[in-house]
Formats: sequence, structure tokens, C-alpha cells
Amino acid sequence: MKNNAVLLIHCPDQSGIVAEVTRFLHERGGNVIRLDEHVDQQIGRFFMRVEWQLDNFEIEEKEKIKKIFYERIGHKYEMEYEVHFLEDKPRMAVFATRASHCLYEIIYRTQSPSENWNVEIPLVISNRDSLRDNVEPFGIPYHFIKVDKNDKATAEKKQLELLKEHKIDFIVFARYMQIISDDFIAKFPNKIINIHHSFLPAFVGPKPYHSAYERGVKIIGATGHYVTNELDAGPIIIQDIQHISHKDSVKDMIRKGRQVEKIVISEAIRLHLERKILVCNNKTVIFD
Amino acid sequence: MKNNAVLLIHCPDQSGIVAEVTRFLHERGGNVIRLDEHVDQQIGRFFMRVEWQLDNFEIEEKEKIKKIFYERIGHKYEMEYEVHFLEDKPRMAVFATRASHCLYEIIYRTQSPSENWNVEIPLVISNRDSLRDNVEPFGIPYHFIKVDKNDKATAEKKQLELLKEHKIDFIVFARYMQIISDDFIAKFPNKIINIHHSFLPAFVGPKPYHSAYERGVKIIGATGHYVTNELDAGPIIIQDIQHISHKDSVKDMIRKGRQVEKIVISEAIRLHLERKILVCNNKTVIFD
Amino acid sequence: MKNNAVLLIHCPDQSGIVAEVTRFLHERGGNVIRLDEHVDQQIGRFFMRVEWQLDNFEIEEKEKIKKIFYERIGHKYEMEYEVHFLEDKPRMAVFATRASHCLYEIIYRTQSPSENWNVEIPLVISNRDSLRDNVEPFGIPYHFIKVDKNDKATAEKKQLELLKEHKIDFIVFARYMQIISDDFIAKFPNKIINIHHSFLPAFVGPKPYHSAYERGVKIIGATGHYVTNELDAGPIIIQDIQHISHKDSVKDMIRKGRQVEKIVISEAIRLHLERKILVCNNKTVIFD
Amino acid sequence: MKNNAVLLIHCPDQSGIVAEVTRFLHERGGNVIRLDEHVDQQIGRFFMRVEWQLDNFEIEEKEKIKKIFYERIGHKYEMEYEVHFLEDKPRMAVFATRASHCLYEIIYRTQSPSENWNVEIPLVISNRDSLRDNVEPFGIPYHFIKVDKNDKATAEKKQLELLKEHKIDFIVFARYMQIISDDFIAKFPNKIINIHHSFLPAFVGPKPYHSAYERGVKIIGATGHYVTNELDAGPIIIQDIQHISHKDSVKDMIRKGRQVEKIVISEAIRLHLERKILVCNNKTVIFD
Repeated sequence: MKNNAVLLIHCPDQSGIVAEVTRFLHERGGNVIRLDEHVDQQIGRFFMRVEWQLDNFEIEEKEKIKKIFYERIGHKYEMEYEVHFLEDKPRMAVFATRASHCLYEIIYRTQSPSENWNVEIPLVISNRDSLRDNVEPFGIPYHFIKVDKNDKATAEKKQLELLKEHKIDFIVFARYMQIISDDFIAKFPNKIINIHHSFLPAFVGPKPYHSAYERGVKIIGATGHYVTNELDAGPIIIQDIQHISHKDSVKDMIRKGRQVEKIVISEAIRLHLERKILVCNNKTVIFD
Repeated sequence: MKNNAVLLIHCPDQSGIVAEVTRFLHERGGNVIRLDEHVDQQIGRFFMRVEWQLDNFEIEEKEKIKKIFYERIGHKYEMEYEVHFLEDKPRMAVFATRASHCLYEIIYRTQSPSENWNVEIPLVISNRDSLRDNVEPFGIPYHFIKVDKNDKATAEKKQLELLKEHKIDFIVFARYMQIISDDFIAKFPNKIINIHHSFLPAFVGPKPYHSAYERGVKIIGATGHYVTNELDAGPIIIQDIQHISHKDSVKDMIRKGRQVEKIVISEAIRLHLERKILVCNNKTVIFD
Repeated sequence: MKNNAVLLIHCPDQSGIVAEVTRFLHERGGNVIRLDEHVDQQIGRFFMRVEWQLDNFEIEEKEKIKKIFYERIGHKYEMEYEVHFLEDKPRMAVFATRASHCLYEIIYRTQSPSENWNVEIPLVISNRDSLRDNVEPFGIPYHFIKVDKNDKATAEKKQLELLKEHKIDFIVFARYMQIISDDFIAKFPNKIINIHHSFLPAFVGPKPYHSAYERGVKIIGATGHYVTNELDAGPIIIQDIQHISHKDSVKDMIRKGRQVEKIVISEAIRLHLERKILVCNNKTVIFD
Repeated sequence: MKNNAVLLIHCPDQSGIVAEVTRFLHERGGNVIRLDEHVDQQIGRFFMRVEWQLDNFEIEEKEKIKKIFYERIGHKYEMEYEVHFLEDKPRMAVFATRASHCLYEIIYRTQSPSENWNVEIPLVISNRDSLRDNVEPFGIPYHFIKVDKNDKATAEKKQLELLKEHKIDFIVFARYMQIISDDFIAKFPNKIINIHHSFLPAFVGPKPYHSAYERGVKIIGATGHYVTNELDAGPIIIQDIQHISHKDSVKDMIRKGRQVEKIVISEAIRLHLERKILVCNNKTVIFD
């Protein structure tokens, strides 16, 4: 992972922003590696991701970059912005329930050098004990926290303690089949990635493949999205599909869907790690 | 178009049906060109399409085939079945409103020898006059029938008269943006093909691309289906999709969607013409 | 078509280029609508497309922009660059032979307001007379120029005269099945778009679907590319594919392939018209 | 895995085959679960896969079915045919070299109950020792057999001994980067599945992603095929692709390609296990 910084910006559209931001970086010794911008004409909003080399950049601390950027540019243009150093290794908690395919794929990619994921998995949390053997051999602690449907708060409390203790930066729901509280979500805004096993907004809810079979659709899909208070309605990061036919039973759909799900969740995580996602108005801008 | 017959069957599943049907054809000199079967285990139902050469087949008339087949096999297995001669040229009415892309594609394919569509278009009906120049140069009569939203019945009456007069076998809604009455639909069961500009069941209704933009989806699509009483809920024949991104405005989606729509509607028509569609329980079995 | 200008640049990679170019435009009243850049790390080369509004831009003439840009920036960075005004309507000649599907699609899109193609077709040239009726009803002159395989030069001379007379800017080979001379190509560098009916580099040459059938592949495809001296080896603009199976005869592949071909050629033309293609080292950078 | 039998047939096309085969099964108490047939008109050859329940079938032994079928039908129609019992659990050897993604996916699917693969992996063979830790934790023996490029015969001898000792039925080359001898291949006709990391016939040979980068293609792909004497030229089972752009370096292509490769190899194995592949004239018929 190279020693690069990423600046993610959005603000009301105005002339000259690119010139001013790139000049700000260039004058301080920042060599821009990649720049992407987008203007949403319908809402008059400007989006930008710029990645530059920190090697000769004269401001060394992230907080200081944020501060100086705010004074010179951010304030003037009413920007919402984030600064990330790609060398920083985020700490990701993975939640799972019964299905292992997404969990397995995520662990594989995390450990595969060629995937180049700069991330750590300090723990896996599950409301069942059955996936322990898929996790512990990789040296990752597995926490079985039972969720009592009449007292979800107790389980969430334990989960949040673990997340705090392990300094978790973001969470992945790798087919975690529990609905969590608004309070929990509020603690991780745009920091919980969920995989939903349909091409949303079709088939919201718990049994999309059964619904797909009932309706007789000819495509099934999967959606990677950030979790918000409204079920399966958060900002969509990525979607993909698989063609099916009358030959496919619900079981076949589940099997075929898994292939799509595990790739979609992995790509969503990669985009998140590479700081390529901007969220605004419950929608994403993806600079990939 | 070769002198072949097609038998489409569905019935409760039972052992020996394929053997009995193929023997029936073979013993009467019918050379089977293609046979497809499917058993839906979930509902215990058997589906079959068999195509055979009529050249040496000893029963020459379609009605007689139906009758003898019923006596020997159809009755015994409680079959619902149809017999078609592929030489017969169905008469297709095309309905359109404002958008020309589907209409244009359909006319092109009908007239292109290499598409090998065995169909005739005796007329195009529209609730606007604006597509006349897209139709009449091809020698196809264009009927402008205005639809008064407070008196749809009058327009439908005129339409039905034309359809009757021109002995129309089936109808294609090539982006015809009017809701028709249950009575109209009842006259053409599984004989009205509609293109809906979304991957159903997502975005039912009149403005799917606007809804897709609002929701921030990453794929758009199109669905070819038979029209039933419930809006956009009939049996799905074919679906396809197109990946999009944050860069796509509603206008871009409409443009990209058109490419998918016109191919999907054309494929649905081809499947219908080649007698490759079986409908049961509001779902299709497609033997392509 | 809005009154926008496009600058397409490539040059050796160096720090500060984006800052300097955007500042150049901003200081002269140019409001940047869209900016895309790319650095090919493997060859150390910088690519950029920037689109800005001309409304308040202080330099009004295209040639003057080029000159001043060269003096201030282009020279310093050893840039190769082009300036385009999107209001200018390029003149496109379409060449065809026997197949009508690409030709038809191109004419449809050119005439369809919703496609928003800013282009004119002053003429269609063919080595056969059979497509005349597909062209003349649209008010486009059709020139039948027979190609004698022992004397191709005579035909090319006539073609070039027509292209000159009609001030043609670029050419589209809409399944034009003749090999043209290096001299001809040299007159239109990166200005002849060809559709090849395979996913290149597989199946170079005249009968790709037959070769695909022989090889037993499970996908067929189409490639839109600029024509260079080497057959089917020019810079690739866009490719797409279609899944096939053992059921597909050569004839089926040809039919299915046509759907891909006509979309691929249309998209290649759109990208060319919107000035979104940069060519370098026989490869393209596509800023779409 | 249900107690079903599969009959795979190909022979010169002739009238009445389906009737005779299905009657043969029906009269002996065999309930046909699924039947697929295909006639390749270009070569006049008939292909068929029929699956039936063995529960009440009066012939219980596989060899006896083969024999009686030959006497009654196979001989008469000059059939090449195979009989398989889906309950039989084939023994699969996996060969790998350096890349772990295909190996990992295969082991995962073999062990995942929901994939429903009826197969055993008695051993993994590699010409490197580096993947041992990916294999042994799953209880699968790992054999490191170094291949001396000046004496490949010694390694092959050891490999063949292991394959014999472990009664291996078929082999999967999960990115095994060694060319094997014709003698080796002759021992496993249509029983070695290889994954090639391009959409063949494009980019035969060892570095397809590098070649794809050089050529500037816009799609990459993967091909699952049976190994024959000619390099990367055996019968293709399945292919899939991934769209790429100028942004993708060779490294990116390798990363994106892996996703396609591991799915394609898995699907090829599944088709092989479910006895859905017929090979004839270096091409496959896939009844999926």
C-alpha cells in the first residue's frame, strides 16, 4: 500500500473548484496520482476524489491537512470532505449468521496478498455458533452472541462493547440475518456494509429468492449497500445479476445467487477500503 | 419457414409421458426435430414442447391432430395443449404511443429476411399521430385513435373493431403508454406482449427510470411480459439489464434503456412466433 | 448540443498538469463541466479530457485556443492535444456492403432526437446496389461504387473524390466487407470506425462466426475499432459479447451477433462524436 | 444425491430414437426425471441426456444396463453412450502451482453442503510447496512433486502413480502452469478439466493478461475446457468474461480475472459431476 492520501469532497457546484484544489496540492508538493470529479446537474452538486503522493507533501499530519484545507478552500465552498491516508489499516468486524460463502470469501481476500486489501479483521460476530470452524483456523477470534428476539438490546450491548474494545472502524454484514436497532446504526453511519440477496428495490425483506421464484423472474441479483434505518433502503454501492430460467428451483437460485453475492460484497468492501465511495442524499458516487 | 408442427403441453407429472407422446408421433411418420421437457418439482407439473416434420406425417390437418391427440393421450393425462404449424403466418398488431425505438426495431426485424420472422403486421395503432412517418413508408397502415382519458371505452371499441377486421392473432405493446380494460385483455389471453422499462418487479408503473434515478440503483433493465389484469404483473417472458453509474442522468438512463428495451421486446416476439413459450400459474416456461 | 469545448491531451506524466490546465481555463472564464484524467503507470503517460462552457470564455476561436494553449502549456509539457467544439456537426460517411442492420441502426440514431447525435450523413457508399432502399427514403444519397477485385484502386479513387466533395470528417464501416489500401487509411487516421463481428483478437478475418462454430466457443462478440494498416488490429474502442450454446448454428450466431454488432458500432460512433476517445500506442483511452 | 441414473448418447441422427429410448426406460420401470436432446443439423448427429429414477428400475447394475441397452438400442443406432449413477462419488485430483484462488474455491465448494457436489478430493498435487497451508487444514493430503524442466517424465511418473493409487477418476488443473505429455493426457481422455485465463481462442499460452493489456482489449475472460494434446485447444465447456477499461493495469486484470476464473472452473466441475457434458468432434454439448 503506497503512502498516498485521498481527499473526498462534495459541495454546491461552482466554477474553479478543480483548479483551486489541485493548485492547493501542487503548491505543497503533492503529486496528484488520480483525480475524478462529477457534477450532478439535477441537484447542482459537485463531487470529487483526488489521490496524491504524500512523499514530498509538506503537511504530514492528517488532522493538519484537514484544518488547513478547511481554512483555505473547504470553508469557502461549503464543502463536506474527508481526508484518508491509504496506509492506515482499517479494522473491520464481520457479522454472519448461517451462510458461510460471503464470510469465507472475505477472509480469503483479506489474507490473499494479490487482492491487496489493506484491512484487518479483529473479530467475527455471529448469532450462531456454527461458523466457528470457518473462522478460527485463520487466527480470527469468533464471538457467538445469541440474539433473543424478545430482548435484542442485550445482544447489541455486547456487540457494541466488543466493537469498541477492538476499535472497529467499519462493519460488514456477511449475510447477517438480524435487524439491528437505529441506535446501533447511528453509531456507524455509512460504515455498515450489507449484502442483500436481490437486485433492490425488488424483493426487499428476508426471502428474496422465494419471492423471485413466485414471481417467475428471469434474473436474480445481489446488492451491496450501506445500512440505514430503513430496511434494505440504504445507499446502493454495487449491484450485479445472474440470468435464470424456469429450470431453476428456489434451491438453484440460492446456489447461483451465492456466486453473485460473494463477489458483490467483496467489491463493495474493496471500494470502501480504497476510499472510492461518496454518499450524498442516500445515493453513492463511486469513483472506481 | 419449414413445414413443421409444434405441440405444447402441460399436465400433472406422471411417468411415461415422453415415451407415449414421441411414440404417437413416430408411429404416424412424424420425425421429431426437437424436444424439450421440464418438470416443475415444486408443483408436480410436466411441461413439454415437441417439434416434428409434417412431410410424412399421416394426419394433415391441425384440428384433426388435436382431436386424435386428445383421444389417445391428452385426455388420459389431463393435458392442456396447443398444436401449431410453423408455416402459418400470425397477424400481429403493434400499438405505440410516442417512443419510436421499439416500433422501428420490430418493423425492421419483420422485414429483414435474415431474422426469419414468420409474421405479418397488418396495422399499427397509436393514440398519437406522430409516428405515422415511421410506419407508412414500410407499407403498413397507421391508425391514429385518440384516447380520451374520461372515455377510454370509445377508443377501445374502435381498436377492437380494427383488430377483428384485420383478423389479428396477437398484439405487441411497443411502449404503448395506456392502460387497457380487463375486457380488452380477456379477448387476448397471453396474446398481448408488453415491454416494461424496468427489471420487474422493481419500478412498476409509468416512470421507472425516474424512480431508478431517485433510488440510486446501479442497474436498469427491461421486461417483456404478457399483459394480464394486474398492471405490470403478467407472466415474464424475458428480462435483461444494463449497468449504470452515478454519471447517468434520467435522460442517459432513458437512452441506455432503449437499447435493452428494443432487444427484449424483439426476443419476446421471436419466442412467441417460434411457439417456445408455455404459460402456467402466471409464469412462463421458455424452451429456447 | 450545448456550446461546450473539449480539450483532449496526452503527454509524458508530470506533476501539476491538472492544476495548470484547469487554472488556464478558469482564468479565462471557462467553467469546467467535466474533467477526466488517467495516468498509464506502465508507460508513464498522462491522459486528460476536459469539457468547459464557452459562454463566458474569453477566447472565441478554436484555432486561437489551440495557439494560446500551445504557447502557455502544450509546448512545455510536450503535449499532443486536440480542441473540439461540440456544436460543430461532423460529417460522417457510412460504407456498407450487404448486411443492413448496422446501417439501419446508424441512420435511425442519427435521425432520432432522443439519441442526441450531433452528426450529418451526407452519403452512403456501397460496393453493392442492394441497400439503396434502406437509405434513400431517409433523404440520404446512396452511391453504388462497384469494387473490381483486380482493380481496387479505381473504386477507391471514386470513393475518395466523393469524400472530398462532401467534406467528410470521418467514416464508419457498417459491415463494409472490403479491405482498403494503406493510402486510403492514411488519409483518415483514427477516423475510420469499423465493426468486426468477433471479440478481437479472436477470429480475425472474414468469417468469424463460422470459425466460432468450428471452435465450439460459448461466447461470441463484436468489436468497434479504428482502422489501421493491419487487418482487424487497430485500436479497440468498445467490445461486447453474447453467450451462445451448442444449440446455435452458424445462422443463429449471425442473427444473435447482429444485435451486439449494431449496438457496439453505435456506441463507438457516439463516443467518437462526444470526443471521448484518445488514441495512443494503438490503444484507446475512453472517458465515458 | 438422489438415486438416479444418467444415459449420455450420441449417434447419427435418425427418426424415432427418443421414442425408443424413453420406451426402453419406461417399460423397465424407469421414471424419467429429465430429458434433453439436440440435433446438430450441420453434421447430422443426435445427442441426448436422459436422467431417470432407479428406485423401481428393474435392472440394478450399471454394467448390465449398458449391456442390455447395447443389445436392444445402442447397437442398432451405432450409438456412443455412457451410463452413470449419480450416487457414485467420483474421485477428483486437483493440480495447482502458485495461485490459490481456484484451489480454494474448489475445496470450499466440495465441503459446502449447499453446493451439493458429490465428489471426493483424495489429494492435491503441486509443483510447488507453497499452497500446502491452503490444503492440509481441510484434511486433504498435499503432494509436492517438483517438475524438472529437463526431465518432466520423472515427475509425471510420480503423479501417475499417485493418481492410480488413489483411484482418481478425473483431474482438475486449478491454474496448474505445466504442460503435460500426450501420454499423460491419453490416460484421462475428457477427464482433465483446465481453466485458461482468457476467452479462448484469444490469447493462447502462458501470459494472457499481459497480451490482453498489450492489445488493449475491453473484455477479458476465462475458459473451462477439457485438456487435449493441442495446447489450450480442447473442447470448451464454459466461458465467461469481465469488462475492463484503460484504467486496468495488468495487475488489475489479474485480480478481476481471478473472480471469473474461479467461477468458471467451478461451474465446469459441477457440469462434469452432474454428467451434463457430451464431447464430440472437439466440441461440447452442455445439457444444463
